[in-house]
Amino acid sequence: MEKVKLGPQTFVFPMPAFLIGADVEKRANFMTAAWSGIACSEPPMISVAIRHPRYTLKGIEENMTFSVNVPSVDQAKEVDYCGIVSGAKTDKTMVCKFKVFYGKLKTAPMVQQCPVNLECKVEHTLDLGSHVLVIGKIEEVYVSGSCFTGEHPDVNKIRPLLWTTMPANVYQGLGDVVAKAFKVGLELK
Amino acid sequence: MEKVKLGPQTFVFPMPAFLIGADVEKRANFMTAAWSGIACSEPPMISVAIRHPRYTLKGIEENMTFSVNVPSVDQAKEVDYCGIVSGAKTDKTMVCKFKVFYGKLKTAPMVQQCPVNLECKVEHTLDLGSHVLVIGKIEEVYVSGSCFTGEHPDVNKIRPLLWTTMPANVYQGLGDVVAKAFKVGLELK
Repeated sequence: MEKVKLGPQTFVFPMPAFLIGADVEKRANFMTAAWSGIACSEPPMISVAIRHPRYTLKGIEENMTFSVNVPSVDQAKEVDYCGIVSGAKTDKTMVCKFKVFYGKLKTAPMVQQCPVNLECKVEHTLDLGSHVLVIGKIEEVYVSGSCFTGEHPDVNKIRPLLWTTMPANVYQGLGDVVAKAFKVGLELK
Repeated sequence: MEKVKLGPQTFVFPMPAFLIGADVEKRANFMTAAWSGIACSEPPMISVAIRHPRYTLKGIEENMTFSVNVPSVDQAKEVDYCGIVSGAKTDKTMVCKFKVFYGKLKTAPMVQQCPVNLECKVEHTLDLGSHVLVIGKIEEVYVSGSCFTGEHPDVNKIRPLLWTTMPANVYQGLGDVVAKAFKVGLELK
């Protein structure tokens, strides 16, 4: 199984398709981001990489707050739109008919229709080149009541969206369960 | 659609299931990590959050290099094992029968059986609390020749692994294509 070198590039799977929310000039704005990951558990933190000129970044730096909204597969159209259009020229919230709500941080707008919302406070920003890595403390997590099974949230009801490239730029859903974690590996012990 | 508050925690979907490689005390070691995301495009960078006591972190700090290996769904057993067992007491490479190769950085071990391998050089480390956020420059990307369709890598042949929680801790595959990116959103324009 020979390996082919692609050169230095951002080539990795899977990637999420999140909507990052910020108030910019006192208006709720949302941009699409695939470059995000959990950064710490105690305290809970998440990172998101944002290009310098992005309108959303302006709002994050203004208020030092932002949100990470996990869309469902039903929201691919809105997610794609928020990745194509800049909030500097368009009220994306209005076009997408997002119902916006705020939590305790007051300035991190969240999308009611997205099944999961993380309300974040900026802890660090790191200028890495083309992108600023924004690292936020997760201050609160909101999950839609309709995505619970009994007392717990259920990923099968959240139905999160993924972003993949190669052979084409597409949004995908979660696939079948392959194995149980903390279990299948015990066979090798 | 009312929202339920979960409190501050690391609750987000989707998450990857990567194998992070490092030479520790001159031996190749691999740990499982779900907390990782692209951090920059020019230059290409990736972040991974690692708990302080992890054996792999010792190797990363020793050599200032590491690898991110993207396993396929066929490797769930090995991925789970590498998340359960510490390399301090076991030669995980031997148990998992990983064929290890090295690239230009010389000290970032990579798993031949994983379809995608990123060879990384540490650019920043950020102590965030329970975890250190390691940010690496992607120096080279290796893709298995068998995962190409024509001239390009094909995610349908890579078949990456995902980690989900709630209702259960499981590994999942990629699901169906939901929509075309940079296209479906144009309907809202």
